[in-house]
Amino acid sequence: MKIGIYGYGNLGRGVEKAFAKNPDMELTGIFTRRDPAAVQTETGAPVYAAAQAEEFTGIIDVMILCGGSATDLPEMTPALARQFSVVDSFDTHARIPEHFDRVDREAFRTGHTALISGGWDPGLFSLARLYMNAALPDGRDYTFWGRGVSQGHSDAIRRIPGVKDARQYTVPIAEAVEQVRAGKQPELTAREKHLRECFVVAEEGADRDRIERTIREMPNYFADYDTTVTFVTEEELKRDHSALPHGGEVIRSGKTSAENGHVMSFSLKLDSNPEFTGSVLLACARAVGRMHARGVFGCHTLFDVAPADLSILSREELRGRLL
Amino acid sequence: MKIGIYGYGNLGRGVEKAFAKNPDMELTGIFTRRDPAAVQTETGAPVYAAAQAEEFTGIIDVMILCGGSATDLPEMTPALARQFSVVDSFDTHARIPEHFDRVDREAFRTGHTALISGGWDPGLFSLARLYMNAALPDGRDYTFWGRGVSQGHSDAIRRIPGVKDARQYTVPIAEAVEQVRAGKQPELTAREKHLRECFVVAEEGADRDRIERTIREMPNYFADYDTTVTFVTEEELKRDHSALPHGGEVIRSGKTSAENGHVMSFSLKLDSNPEFTGSVLLACARAVGRMHARGVFGCHTLFDVAPADLSILSREELRGRLL
Repeated sequence: MKIGIYGYGNLGRGVEKAFAKNPDMELTGIFTRRDPAAVQTETGAPVYAAAQAEEFTGIIDVMILCGGSATDLPEMTPALARQFSVVDSFDTHARIPEHFDRVDREAFRTGHTALISGGWDPGLFSLARLYMNAALPDGRDYTFWGRGVSQGHSDAIRRIPGVKDARQYTVPIAEAVEQVRAGKQPELTAREKHLRECFVVAEEGADRDRIERTIREMPNYFADYDTTVTFVTEEELKRDHSALPHGGEVIRSGKTSAENGHVMSFSLKLDSNPEFTGSVLLACARAVGRMHARGVFGCHTLFDVAPADLSILSREELRGRLL
Repeated sequence: MKIGIYGYGNLGRGVEKAFAKNPDMELTGIFTRRDPAAVQTETGAPVYAAAQAEEFTGIIDVMILCGGSATDLPEMTPALARQFSVVDSFDTHARIPEHFDRVDREAFRTGHTALISGGWDPGLFSLARLYMNAALPDGRDYTFWGRGVSQGHSDAIRRIPGVKDARQYTVPIAEAVEQVRAGKQPELTAREKHLRECFVVAEEGADRDRIERTIREMPNYFADYDTTVTFVTEEELKRDHSALPHGGEVIRSGKTSAENGHVMSFSLKLDSNPEFTGSVLLACARAVGRMHARGVFGCHTLFDVAPADLSILSREELRGRLL
């Protein structure tokens, strides 16, 4: 199956690396809005200008879109779905229904197949929530994230005047996780579920007290959480905080009768968020390619994909080995 | 959707209880090989003789088959698939391909839809293995079971002369689980993964040493494990060991590059194995009914089922709430 990567930041690099572990998938090209000649790839894959993508219509089976959810994907996915079958990792939860409808219209009209919101959350965590809800309808879900780097929160700190660079870790509160794992169903506020650790490089002469206060009081991002702010040097940030670990846990507990309760959990511990997400997106592309070959057009999410379509193994092999 | 339960032991009772939590599903009848008049149900559902089932062809949408895998289901599932769409929980892993083919032939020929090997293992654990393998192709799976009652091992003890009753718990070895969760990929023997705790009621005057030795040396069941045997009275067995808890954990760890490793885990902690399994089977029946209505005939496993088909929620609701 011939695959293109459209957008070449951390996530695009993660997808690129995943080809080494998926011998049935072939990377045809990487498409970038930068100057292709200036881009150094991880594996020596060919790089093209984004505008050249249309020359690959009919050649590339599935294009994996590695743009951001805030401004890139809302335009990019419907536009590219007119020329290619596509996969994206759109993660603005509130806008998923609207994004789905726009992509569905374009893909369906042009006979393409699309999968949006692939990855792990949304993605594998969403699947865990669905299966858990179906298996145990009377219960309650909890999702904990981290310990891991939140790109959005790191960016929010970087926008504060006087901040040169920053890294924010989302940290689940162990006591809350333990309560939920034990089958209790506590009411938890945002503050009781996660805390936020910020590592900040201040510009020379900047007012550190003001920066710290601005972070702690920032609505939505930090005001509702216990937040620690640690100032570090640029060297320290690079040395100690340049990895992009992440993870988390989905837990559902509930009852099948007055007497009997059950706890289900799905957890991830990831050294590299973009590499793992890239690997999941490549599996999604496999499913999209197979669905397209069967004439299943329009937009989908992982909720609509038969699990077997994600695997390199045949259905017979899967039944024999993994069932 | 109208559902029948065929076979009324612990699992059948578990399915019956699940209807209270699934308001879109209606229990039409329970079919038993015993005298229907002598059967007391959990919820007052009507009971019929197994032979009467054929009168419900065209009325019952999906029949859930609650027989044993050793002798019941290999005959029951293909036979019933000629008259109904069916769900079973066939769990003899080595014979799944053969069972699948027989059920597929009958279901396809008669325009019915079947799902075999529903439940949690095989079932939800199989799904966890598939998704984890697709997301992380270069890695290694581990499955731990317990702490929980193994019906098969309990039965094996009961067949020993001089044994009146018995209960066997499969117990995962915490040290092994911790190693695997930490992302190590140890080679583990059967003995290093699980131990087996047996609680045995001996008949009066029986040779306890012989019973204990027979258990410990039983090939396949106990010889390869560290096994404890505790003799208890009939009253103690009833008081302390009449619940049917179970659970376990599927863990996969692997790499997306030379530098970056990841650990995925799916775990269950169940107060009642038959109630939870019954609840999963009812969700499987929902999917089978929907697939049948779309004209998707023949045999399937959870690997072939779009997750959304298991849920009471519509695809729009799922995208809005759980993605």
